[in-house]
Amino acid sequence: MEEKAYKIAVIPGDGTGPEVIREGIKVLEAVGRKFNIKFNFTFFDWGGERYLKTGETIPEGGIEELKKHDAIYLGAIGHPQVKPGILEKEILLRIRFELDQYINLRPVKLYPGVWTPIKDKGPEDIDFVVVRENTEGLYAGGGGFLRKGTPYEVAIQESINTRYGVERCIRFAFEYCRKRNKKKKVTLVGKTNVLTYAWDLWYRVFEEVGKEYPDIEKDYAHVDAVCMWFIKNPEWFDVIVTDNMFGDIITDLGAIIQGGMGIAAGGNINPNGVSMFEPIGGSAPKYTGKNVINPLAAICAGMMMLEWLGEESSAKAIEKAVIKVCRDHLKSLSAGKMGYTTSEVGDLVAKYV
Amino acid sequence: MEEKAYKIAVIPGDGTGPEVIREGIKVLEAVGRKFNIKFNFTFFDWGGERYLKTGETIPEGGIEELKKHDAIYLGAIGHPQVKPGILEKEILLRIRFELDQYINLRPVKLYPGVWTPIKDKGPEDIDFVVVRENTEGLYAGGGGFLRKGTPYEVAIQESINTRYGVERCIRFAFEYCRKRNKKKKVTLVGKTNVLTYAWDLWYRVFEEVGKEYPDIEKDYAHVDAVCMWFIKNPEWFDVIVTDNMFGDIITDLGAIIQGGMGIAAGGNINPNGVSMFEPIGGSAPKYTGKNVINPLAAICAGMMMLEWLGEESSAKAIEKAVIKVCRDHLKSLSAGKMGYTTSEVGDLVAKYV
Ligand SMILES: CC(C)[C@H](C(=O)O)[C@@H](O)C(=O)O
Ligand SMILES: CC(C)[C@H](C(=O)O)[C@@H](O)C(=O)O
Repeated sequence: MEEKAYKIAVIPGDGTGPEVIREGIKVLEAVGRKFNIKFNFTFFDWGGERYLKTGETIPEGGIEELKKHDAIYLGAIGHPQVKPGILEKEILLRIRFELDQYINLRPVKLYPGVWTPIKDKGPEDIDFVVVRENTEGLYAGGGGFLRKGTPYEVAIQESINTRYGVERCIRFAFEYCRKRNKKKKVTLVGKTNVLTYAWDLWYRVFEEVGKEYPDIEKDYAHVDAVCMWFIKNPEWFDVIVTDNMFGDIITDLGAIIQGGMGIAAGGNINPNGVSMFEPIGGSAPKYTGKNVINPLAAICAGMMMLEWLGEESSAKAIEKAVIKVCRDHLKSLSAGKMGYTTSEVGDLVAKYV
Repeated sequence: MEEKAYKIAVIPGDGTGPEVIREGIKVLEAVGRKFNIKFNFTFFDWGGERYLKTGETIPEGGIEELKKHDAIYLGAIGHPQVKPGILEKEILLRIRFELDQYINLRPVKLYPGVWTPIKDKGPEDIDFVVVRENTEGLYAGGGGFLRKGTPYEVAIQESINTRYGVERCIRFAFEYCRKRNKKKKVTLVGKTNVLTYAWDLWYRVFEEVGKEYPDIEKDYAHVDAVCMWFIKNPEWFDVIVTDNMFGDIITDLGAIIQGGMGIAAGGNINPNGVSMFEPIGGSAPKYTGKNVINPLAAICAGMMMLEWLGEESSAKAIEKAVIKVCRDHLKSLSAGKMGYTTSEVGDLVAKYV
């Protein structure tokens, strides 16, 4: 068997990011030994600490460096001593935007043995994927202040939606649904009855592109109703497609029903470029450095990365090992309540792959 | 005891609206007999049916008519044969905006005996209030299209936030929290790390106004995280304040944990003008005319209306009767599964008040 090699850019980032990425790498290397895959990791120290020391978020040429890799593996961005928005916009969102990672892919899957906070639902009910647009909408940064600091201040925030951006996102959702080959249903989640510009465009494109996929059922739901259905009827969903802001909200709700931040991972995908994979839990300052955070989300992000690189057998091996650890070992997926340390969980998964 | 009289404008509206409002009025009249309150109801036939027949949403002078009343009692707005946005914007949102009902007040309270879809939480855990800004943000209607219908189309949707609008909303939340006198905590829910114009204003005003309320704890959380906490830790909340769009989303999630659309009610409040009370479940076309929809949400909207009119004893009497019906009678709060018809549920509540 020929050895394959991948160049992976690693951004451990802030808070518990480095701890979980360490375990993710441990598992990737274990699976790599088994499947004859070599990973060449390049580390980037971008994040709050560096910013506080140097004032720099991404150094000059940083984005170009990332482009030389096959994928990016990210821990977490966000630091309690840095004003909200700076690191998020100048690191995380900048990478998403400049590498044109126009899809945020979030599988919501309850593994057997994992505790969900909702009643009467099991792994057979909770298995869907959210396709979130990742490069425009309210995240585009449009807007500004008028008369800032006065009693007459106005603050505007703009959601920018382009035919180009919406279409490629919706098309991705239909293609993904076809490949996934489960319920064969795509649900557009929006707010057509109030946001009558943005969602008129989304709805028109959904109907138009949808015609090219006669084998796939199409559905539309308002974002407020969908939040209820995630809790009462998660089994209704297969593939969901939505904009950046609504996607941000509903994927966190999705995370909680699949067991929480301890397990939820996502991919920032550019199908023709460099994609980035991350646990979605954030930097969790309160658990930092204690070796108690759950690394499974980062491990699952690594699994998604392998899948995306085309390494399906090794991805499957990680998924099986994660399921085994959830079912046979962990008392809970929450930080500090697992019954194991962060490193022990990483060791277990590495042992089982 | 002197008789009090109130002029109530009633808009039964679409779908199941008329059925639930009928029961709400039954209960109001029953409680009125007991507490010597007279209601003079004026009915307005605004909604989808009228629009389809006449092309008219609110007839000329309609808003002025509403202003002559002490309160407005609304069933539901939304019709499957009318393009999304027309009735919502030209009736519901127009009333909210033109009567300057700048607060959307949504108590999230789990009554004893009511089934919640989340595990390990009871009435002692689920008891908070969402104060949603109701006259600006993404609901202001700002935005437009560029090159509509072409491959180069851009659709913009604007969130407009004013110091004036944000401040009065935040101030209302603090005042309400003080009067409520429970956990004495106000949580601002936003997205400061991405929507850095709108939420910078909100956050600054929250800090500034908050200083006037040293007796009240202040907290901030991102909207995505809050969706998780509603499910995992609803007991953390007391009063939540947020913008129009986020409020729309999180209050539906709140509705589901308090038992669903069968029970959830809200008030559109103008503290110095005419306020409007409504069940938040929508027009539910699929149950229309079947006498199976749950009228408790409309009944609770009537209760909120009484409370707001200063009729606290009669409001309390309705609440007690609702709790009794939930605990001793209904099999479920869902339409068609109550074990009683819509009218029977109204009869029961009317009997117990
Ligand atoms: C950290 C933050 C900027 C980010 C977002 O809002 O996209 C996060 O919540 C996510 O979902 O990846
Ligand atoms: C019907 C719709 C326009 C409305 C809204 O979005 O405000 C509803 O969802 C609500 O929450 O009252």
